[in-house]
Amino acid sequence: MDMWLLAWVINAGKSQHNEDQACCEVVFVERRPSPRGRLSSREGAGELDRGRKGFYFHYWALFDGHAGSGAAVMASERLHMHICEQLRDLVDILQDPSPPPICLPHDTRTGPADPNRVSLTEDDGEVPNNAVPRFHLEKVVSHESLVIGAIENAFKHMDDQIERERAAQHLAGGCCALAAIYLMGKFYVANAGDSRAIIIRNGEIIPMSREFTPETERQRLQFLALLRPELLGKEFTHLEFPRRIQPKELGKKMLYRDQSMNGWAYKKIEEDDLKFPLIYGEGKKARMMATIGVTRGLGDHDLKVFSSNIHIKPFLSCFPEVRVYDLTQYEHCPDDVLVLGTDGLWDVTNDKEVAGVVMEVLTSYEPNDPCRYTMVAQELVVRSRGVLKERGWRLANDKLGSGDDISVFVIPLGGPGNYT
Amino acid sequence: MDMWLLAWVINAGKSQHNEDQACCEVVFVERRPSPRGRLSSREGAGELDRGRKGFYFHYWALFDGHAGSGAAVMASERLHMHICEQLRDLVDILQDPSPPPICLPHDTRTGPADPNRVSLTEDDGEVPNNAVPRFHLEKVVSHESLVIGAIENAFKHMDDQIERERAAQHLAGGCCALAAIYLMGKFYVANAGDSRAIIIRNGEIIPMSREFTPETERQRLQFLALLRPELLGKEFTHLEFPRRIQPKELGKKMLYRDQSMNGWAYKKIEEDDLKFPLIYGEGKKARMMATIGVTRGLGDHDLKVFSSNIHIKPFLSCFPEVRVYDLTQYEHCPDDVLVLGTDGLWDVTNDKEVAGVVMEVLTSYEPNDPCRYTMVAQELVVRSRGVLKERGWRLANDKLGSGDDISVFVIPLGGPGNYT
Repeated sequence: MDMWLLAWVINAGKSQHNEDQACCEVVFVERRPSPRGRLSSREGAGELDRGRKGFYFHYWALFDGHAGSGAAVMASERLHMHICEQLRDLVDILQDPSPPPICLPHDTRTGPADPNRVSLTEDDGEVPNNAVPRFHLEKVVSHESLVIGAIENAFKHMDDQIERERAAQHLAGGCCALAAIYLMGKFYVANAGDSRAIIIRNGEIIPMSREFTPETERQRLQFLALLRPELLGKEFTHLEFPRRIQPKELGKKMLYRDQSMNGWAYKKIEEDDLKFPLIYGEGKKARMMATIGVTRGLGDHDLKVFSSNIHIKPFLSCFPEVRVYDLTQYEHCPDDVLVLGTDGLWDVTNDKEVAGVVMEVLTSYEPNDPCRYTMVAQELVVRSRGVLKERGWRLANDKLGSGDDISVFVIPLGGPGNYT
Repeated sequence: MDMWLLAWVINAGKSQHNEDQACCEVVFVERRPSPRGRLSSREGAGELDRGRKGFYFHYWALFDGHAGSGAAVMASERLHMHICEQLRDLVDILQDPSPPPICLPHDTRTGPADPNRVSLTEDDGEVPNNAVPRFHLEKVVSHESLVIGAIENAFKHMDDQIERERAAQHLAGGCCALAAIYLMGKFYVANAGDSRAIIIRNGEIIPMSREFTPETERQRLQFLALLRPELLGKEFTHLEFPRRIQPKELGKKMLYRDQSMNGWAYKKIEEDDLKFPLIYGEGKKARMMATIGVTRGLGDHDLKVFSSNIHIKPFLSCFPEVRVYDLTQYEHCPDDVLVLGTDGLWDVTNDKEVAGVVMEVLTSYEPNDPCRYTMVAQELVVRSRGVLKERGWRLANDKLGSGDDISVFVIPLGGPGNYT
């Protein structure tokens, strides 16, 4: 990939340790050798597979670590490999314009064959898949859905790998993960955490992610806590209250909401309501189990509520939400970009301000200047960090700058020769 | 309320039994007598409460019954009373422009007083609520959220009442419920099921509800099934597959998705996957547990999977989603309307077509003609039913008309003197 296709700046340079990590790669997904091919390769006739059949995907990702950078570092080194691994089985299917087959023949690679199975496999091997009689009721699954599923499962495998290797490799902490994958004309933006992606197209802002926080995921978390109260270790209540309840308020009526409610109502305070609420606080101060401010991400397998044996992980999900943007549906100009940023950016600079900086900086460079996107990313970081004054780091409007790590990718959508 | 404020037509007249029910009311929410008031009334000084302090709300609701009309009939007679009941405690709070109090004093009406409680109540009664010291971290809850919470809990109480009285009153079946409440300048549209509400404003369509079906609620249902597998009675799997799996396909790879996934991936078919999927089918044919095509609603407490002892109810939720439309934020003209319809309408007539009929019919009447909204509702029903031809009921485009009950409310948003 040409360098001008990407533009990124990591960390505003405030802290000594940067917990943000990033990765940008072009990955070749090589078709997995077929069982037959592998068999024959064992017999010395493997040359047939040397053609390296497969396809490329472009990949950008940000990992915002917390409680250490171990998980973020490993995820930045490996997540794209897991995505690649998930896609390898799909090489033929994604390159075939007909709908993906619902069912594939027996996979002879997965473990020793069941001796009873041989007698059942009349329709395997030689018989083409569509010769199997189809049921009347059969959902058509799109190629796009397969890519989404592959990305979702890649996050799961990444999380499993961190869990397996955390002790041996001293992987501390966890991380939010935001990844953009360009594949066959479409951008897939996968988000697990509170980073954010937006597309700026012809001045218009198109959100490409949403944040996963104790507030946005309240109902999922409360539902889990209600069904599995043992996960709360008798320390927490699944109900939400607008503030902590004092023991002397027992018997009074207080506002609450449960997993089914979006509104609030009054309930009489009972003994159980004096426990700490599962979700507590507002905005950037909202916490789950008084411990963590994000509810999706990788790692954190050892994270517990302070001085307790209550694990956070069952509530923290590693699954991303994947949004798709079809690049072929619109004629893009060189000023159209996809911006990925960690919360260090978005906490102090909103979507509109980011779009303003993008347009301002891009118009000050020639459309074919390869530096212009890097300049946008730099400018976004510098403006969000602010300038060191007597009263701390300050933004242009004199508000406090972001004290967090700030990482930004600016990915051009238009222009000739992109992503070929 | 003047008659011209509402316009509705129930049932296309195809079936002998109509399972759709409707209700339209103006309800007075009378402030609940305070404990002190009640005390003094017992002492013969109750005249103080005769002022009937309170407010009105306007109410329209559609109930689309299934497996009998009992639940729909009862809900149409009672739901607004439950909403009224929930709002009664809020009369003073909703009429006070300051934010609702987080905590209310002891409620002396709820059961016999705890003898130990007296010693704890120094800050009760005489001390105004805001004299209690507030915590630093305290969420501000809006009046709007209280109304939403009241409506949500009213649905729950309605469902509980149907459960309690179903045996004695021979209440059969269940129903989807869609209700619009106009209160203090805002429309609250509460939906539990597959009915739909849209606003048509200046030709623009604003969705005011979403449908709750096995497809739209797949992840909630799969999550519940995963956490409470005993609810599936060993008959169902929480995984979704694009079609039924044949026993002989054991060991092959098939597309699936679980509660965390939006995309699809292949998995090796195991014994457990041969069970019937919790969610199965597409569009109008999608079913939960092979039994029901909606996943929210009232009633259905006795509904079980055919010839089994597996209850549907734990998966079927009675809680509505409430959307709010602030009537004061926009200058409405007499052609702006809120349309409520059961699926009998929307299955054959889409949002755009409905908006087209609304505009077409309204322009053929004088803006102050009280009949014009009724005429729209009639026209919507007639067009969706179609005309009886040799080959059944046919629409203008010769497609098959709706065979379902069709119920429509057309509620004007603009014009002088509305909702005062």
